[in-house]
Amino acid sequence: YMLPKPQGLTMVNQVQRVDGSWQTSKSDSSGASNSGESSKESSRCSTPLLDADRSDRLREKMRKRMESGDPWFSLEFFPPRTASGAVNLISRFDRMGSGGPLFIDITWHPAGDPGSNKETSSMMIASTAVNYCGLESVLHLTCSNQSQETITGYLTKAKQLGLKNIMALRGDPLGTDWEDEEEGFNYATDLVKHIRSEFDDYFDICVAGYPTGHPEAQSYAEDLQHLKEKVDAGADFIITQLFFRADTFLKFLRDCRAIGITVPILPGVFPIQGYQSLRQLVKLSKLEVPEEIMEVIEPIKDNDAAIRSYGIHQAVEMCRVLLDSGAVPGLHFYTLNREVATTEVLRQLGLWIEDPRRPLPWATSANPKRKVEDVRPIFWASRPKSYIYRTQDWDDFPNGRWGNSSSPAFGELNDYYLFYLKSKSSKDALLKMWGEELTSETSVFEVFTSYITAQVNRGGHKVMCLPWNDDALATETNLLKDELEKVNRRGVLTINSQPNINGKPSSDPIAGWGPAGGYVFQKAYLEFFTSSENVTALLKVLKKYEPRVNYHIVNVQGHNMTNAQDMQPNAVTWGIFPGREIVQPTVVDPVSFMYWKDEAFALWIEQWAKLYEDESPSRMIIKYIHDNYFLVNLVDNDFPLDSCLWQVLDDMFELLDAPPEVVGDGALAPVALGDGALAPVGLGDGALAPVALGDGALAPVGLGDGALEPVVGDGAPQPLSASQ
Amino acid sequence: YMLPKPQGLTMVNQVQRVDGSWQTSKSDSSGASNSGESSKESSRCSTPLLDADRSDRLREKMRKRMESGDPWFSLEFFPPRTASGAVNLISRFDRMGSGGPLFIDITWHPAGDPGSNKETSSMMIASTAVNYCGLESVLHLTCSNQSQETITGYLTKAKQLGLKNIMALRGDPLGTDWEDEEEGFNYATDLVKHIRSEFDDYFDICVAGYPTGHPEAQSYAEDLQHLKEKVDAGADFIITQLFFRADTFLKFLRDCRAIGITVPILPGVFPIQGYQSLRQLVKLSKLEVPEEIMEVIEPIKDNDAAIRSYGIHQAVEMCRVLLDSGAVPGLHFYTLNREVATTEVLRQLGLWIEDPRRPLPWATSANPKRKVEDVRPIFWASRPKSYIYRTQDWDDFPNGRWGNSSSPAFGELNDYYLFYLKSKSSKDALLKMWGEELTSETSVFEVFTSYITAQVNRGGHKVMCLPWNDDALATETNLLKDELEKVNRRGVLTINSQPNINGKPSSDPIAGWGPAGGYVFQKAYLEFFTSSENVTALLKVLKKYEPRVNYHIVNVQGHNMTNAQDMQPNAVTWGIFPGREIVQPTVVDPVSFMYWKDEAFALWIEQWAKLYEDESPSRMIIKYIHDNYFLVNLVDNDFPLDSCLWQVLDDMFELLDAPPEVVGDGALAPVALGDGALAPVGLGDGALAPVALGDGALAPVGLGDGALEPVVGDGAPQPLSASQ
Repeated sequence: YMLPKPQGLTMVNQVQRVDGSWQTSKSDSSGASNSGESSKESSRCSTPLLDADRSDRLREKMRKRMESGDPWFSLEFFPPRTASGAVNLISRFDRMGSGGPLFIDITWHPAGDPGSNKETSSMMIASTAVNYCGLESVLHLTCSNQSQETITGYLTKAKQLGLKNIMALRGDPLGTDWEDEEEGFNYATDLVKHIRSEFDDYFDICVAGYPTGHPEAQSYAEDLQHLKEKVDAGADFIITQLFFRADTFLKFLRDCRAIGITVPILPGVFPIQGYQSLRQLVKLSKLEVPEEIMEVIEPIKDNDAAIRSYGIHQAVEMCRVLLDSGAVPGLHFYTLNREVATTEVLRQLGLWIEDPRRPLPWATSANPKRKVEDVRPIFWASRPKSYIYRTQDWDDFPNGRWGNSSSPAFGELNDYYLFYLKSKSSKDALLKMWGEELTSETSVFEVFTSYITAQVNRGGHKVMCLPWNDDALATETNLLKDELEKVNRRGVLTINSQPNINGKPSSDPIAGWGPAGGYVFQKAYLEFFTSSENVTALLKVLKKYEPRVNYHIVNVQGHNMTNAQDMQPNAVTWGIFPGREIVQPTVVDPVSFMYWKDEAFALWIEQWAKLYEDESPSRMIIKYIHDNYFLVNLVDNDFPLDSCLWQVLDDMFELLDAPPEVVGDGALAPVALGDGALAPVGLGDGALAPVALGDGALAPVGLGDGALEPVVGDGAPQPLSASQ
Repeated sequence: YMLPKPQGLTMVNQVQRVDGSWQTSKSDSSGASNSGESSKESSRCSTPLLDADRSDRLREKMRKRMESGDPWFSLEFFPPRTASGAVNLISRFDRMGSGGPLFIDITWHPAGDPGSNKETSSMMIASTAVNYCGLESVLHLTCSNQSQETITGYLTKAKQLGLKNIMALRGDPLGTDWEDEEEGFNYATDLVKHIRSEFDDYFDICVAGYPTGHPEAQSYAEDLQHLKEKVDAGADFIITQLFFRADTFLKFLRDCRAIGITVPILPGVFPIQGYQSLRQLVKLSKLEVPEEIMEVIEPIKDNDAAIRSYGIHQAVEMCRVLLDSGAVPGLHFYTLNREVATTEVLRQLGLWIEDPRRPLPWATSANPKRKVEDVRPIFWASRPKSYIYRTQDWDDFPNGRWGNSSSPAFGELNDYYLFYLKSKSSKDALLKMWGEELTSETSVFEVFTSYITAQVNRGGHKVMCLPWNDDALATETNLLKDELEKVNRRGVLTINSQPNINGKPSSDPIAGWGPAGGYVFQKAYLEFFTSSENVTALLKVLKKYEPRVNYHIVNVQGHNMTNAQDMQPNAVTWGIFPGREIVQPTVVDPVSFMYWKDEAFALWIEQWAKLYEDESPSRMIIKYIHDNYFLVNLVDNDFPLDSCLWQVLDDMFELLDAPPEVVGDGALAPVALGDGALAPVGLGDGALAPVALGDGALAPVGLGDGALEPVVGDGAPQPLSASQ
């Protein structure tokens, strides 16, 4: 497109409205934006939504928030010690991320192999926060006792992982006294300089400030000068050590400004959460707790609840003074990896966003590589981290549309990936939810039904998750609860669904997403496992719904039935916004469905069957389902009308319930199983094709001529009957 | 995306429904389509709509139509002699193209510099048909007396222009007798071989068949053998010389099949349209008119209407016999560049498509380079050929979305381009429509109003076109007729508009487009020229419509005012279809608007002002408008509600009509014009900025603080007043 400019088009005065005021800016008539980063990475296919925001770097985000007088908060976490601790921390990221922190930061644990690929390392936790939780993140990095090569290696790795911000620290000496290194780094300033010299302006850099002076500093004044050196070396903002009095910080702030430090300075806030943790922290940081605080705490030191309550109160009071000063653009919280106290302080301050506006229906990743991404297949809606993991090697990401021709190469289901697959619940808890002992397929139907209804199962336990759903039902899915319960009871084992939506405001609290003033739409979607018998009836029923309903039906071997005319994706979620192109963030993509199918079937075995002993009836039942059920997805294209998908299933049940003379003898009972008993041992080979299908597709059965042909079925009672 | 395939995904049996029957086909699990061409040119961003159809080549289209028993027609034209003849022929392509020909063909006139860039050459006419009219076209090519290099040059040029089909002919000898050439081509067979050897399978090749034998052939049998040789050399289908009896063709067809010619053979149909043209044609083609026809014609040879009527009757009868034979897949018409007879024959045969389904709201181009194109700026809606011309050098075309970052480099407004700009009407006719003499801006308002209302103007003439609209109002625009009339009368000179549409069926006869079963949407759009005084009031009014209405307002110098937050395009037409991603074929793109602005303003001068003498008052009035008016576009983003754009204009008029004390003194009257008289001579320098704007933008006026500042205006009567 870069032909010479047409005559008569030189410079154009553009008047743009920014935050309610009018500004005039000069711009090239080509319309390229002023942002160098943005235009450099642009292409005709780049995302139309929030592009400018996504390309923002942290310091720019801060600048904009300061300009609009909109105070922010940030959250500090430390890396976990165990893999299950990592799973829990990542869940906490998701929950606390929903409150709207401007960023989080992850401390650097030199003793914990912080730059490694271990799932507990500082590097990997920060990477997970960015890539999988979509959080702007700052990775701490200490330089003491490190060679320049090692540090450069860490930074290179961080950049490759999509990390964009570094908190540059000296770190503690290995011994008791600090010794200057000739080749290495002596001060955080050296690290800041190194980052700038090796990585230019790529990273946003944070440095630490000490409101009462660094414990090792000669004097408060000298320490301020060190801070100024760090900023002069290229630091973009400052986070302070914790303190207990607002005045401490405000004086420090004035002193910093007085010597010419102009970057943002964020107070480090530590809500007291317990007597012991306070003592330990004070000892490590060599801080003194003010008398007035000790006087309150000492008398209640054995009452944890009272101390926490006081800690929240004290932090809220202090933060109010800080914010009221008008000199504090944001608050930084030392969370100690805990949620309650910090969240409560933020709620009381009015900084916690109860209903953060979603830019898209799914959580976006903060990796700059993915910033244009705005389309995903719907299949991973309940497993977004799995989707991100399996697509992490992609060089570019679909935006604007999914497209229909490229083969999306999804990463394999490997060991590391299983970390993200892993349930947060223990094996014991899972058995209680999903059944200590399964006696038939009906036992499985009941698990799904309990999950949908949020009622306790036979054993008195609530089913809080399923292998395909780590969390409780989404608010939106709850709209479909009654219908979902009914069909799960009868062996339509739903794992994903959405209702149709015909133009709700983008601000709708449940269905809304995207910028204000828009309208969002959805096609009704339903995805479930069900038996081959049900599928046979379903296929017959679906003929009545041509071309309104699109379907894809596949079993574990990949036998695939569809009425889609070609391999094109079907957009099932889209939004129309003022001054934007259409955004269509969710599609049913037939090609991706085949990759999802592998994952969806594997979860039966990896997450559920393996809870039971080898060869146990429980395991065999799950394995039977894995080997013989089909994964079905249905889309009702007629989004302005009430969804017909429940009627489709009603029709299917009606056909199955009809007396034999009506059904004909084509009911696809797994008669080849022979003896009418539960899951015979012969099922163990793992590659058993759906009975009656031979090695072909199900297609010849009842599809060609509108009649259910008596292929193999003879109306015999099914050994594994549906529950009713 | 081309990582190794994940495990467990090998071959998938796909069951796809094709034309009501079920077929099982093997497909790679990647989901790549079977079409080599399609997958080769695919990318993630390729168009989701009708891609397979667009990538079809002519012979494939024929094959599919034959398979589904769907007979087609095609139309033959010869190149015009004059430039105005070319303009007329292109209009005829548009009109006859709407009836749904499978293809048209353009004869090769060796004496008329057929391969040149002249607008009347065979090459350029065929190129125009493909690129601008969206018609599948076959270019004739004769090889007699041509060197291989010349022929290769023609073919290379044809390919570069997007032509895909060649009718390979020998052509007539230069002298009376044919002499074999050693280096050149002696027979059409040589040309077919040459095309295949030099261009492989790129072109679809047609050859001529002679139902009564070629006049120069030794015998009918020998001529059949020559035809077989042409087909064996690589011809894809045959069109026959005209004939007068169905039996003649059907015998020829049987004889061809008998000797092993299997390609489609299309009968050449010649509706008799006059006595002289019949005699001339018969003489040239050395054919004999059957007795039974001459017996009818001779008695009425001086009655043109009677002969035409008979010709239609005779052609219809013959075609019915041909189609009823079941052996004729399509009919080829020798139109002699006339419309009526052929159209009437096709109507009577039921082959003329009265309401061809539009794949997109605008006519697509048939150039293979543009086959993925499915998004265009709305500005060129009434000048699609101009848009195609100005984007002909693009390497790739936007599909799926317009995107916001690339600079779309539009071709310059040059001489050749003016060919496409040129009105079909004579200067005299234009003066009658647009005014022999303009006395004020009001005269111009009246021209626009007459165009909208289709009522005669003061001089008693209908205004059938405007510089920005070659044709009468679109059906859709007619829906807005009353509102348009009202605002044009008051100097809001509309040149483009569309109503809002909230989910009409894609089959809607007026608003519908795209595949069946879908829904189409539009945001209301209005584009007009208006005075700076009106713009000042409009900008004040528009504040009440934030953020519902997006606007772009620009004058000829490029001073641009907008409330768009960035340079992103706004989708104003989109469709939701079963099993597809969203299609959004029309956008308001701020960057393209600046290019369109140049064209829109230039039309005032090039098409209108230049009708009048230099320095004449009429010309000065148009020039004043060109120099001082603004081009405005408005989008109402709230498509589910009734359009508010008329209310916006009502509010603007109300503000303008209010007594001075309410308007304030900010009415931006062009007081600098000074003497209150019409268009003073000082306007002649062509670079006069809108008065009161100085060299900056209009922005400071009434924008910054919500009040209309008294910048220069003093409420003095405007020298060029609005009509009311």
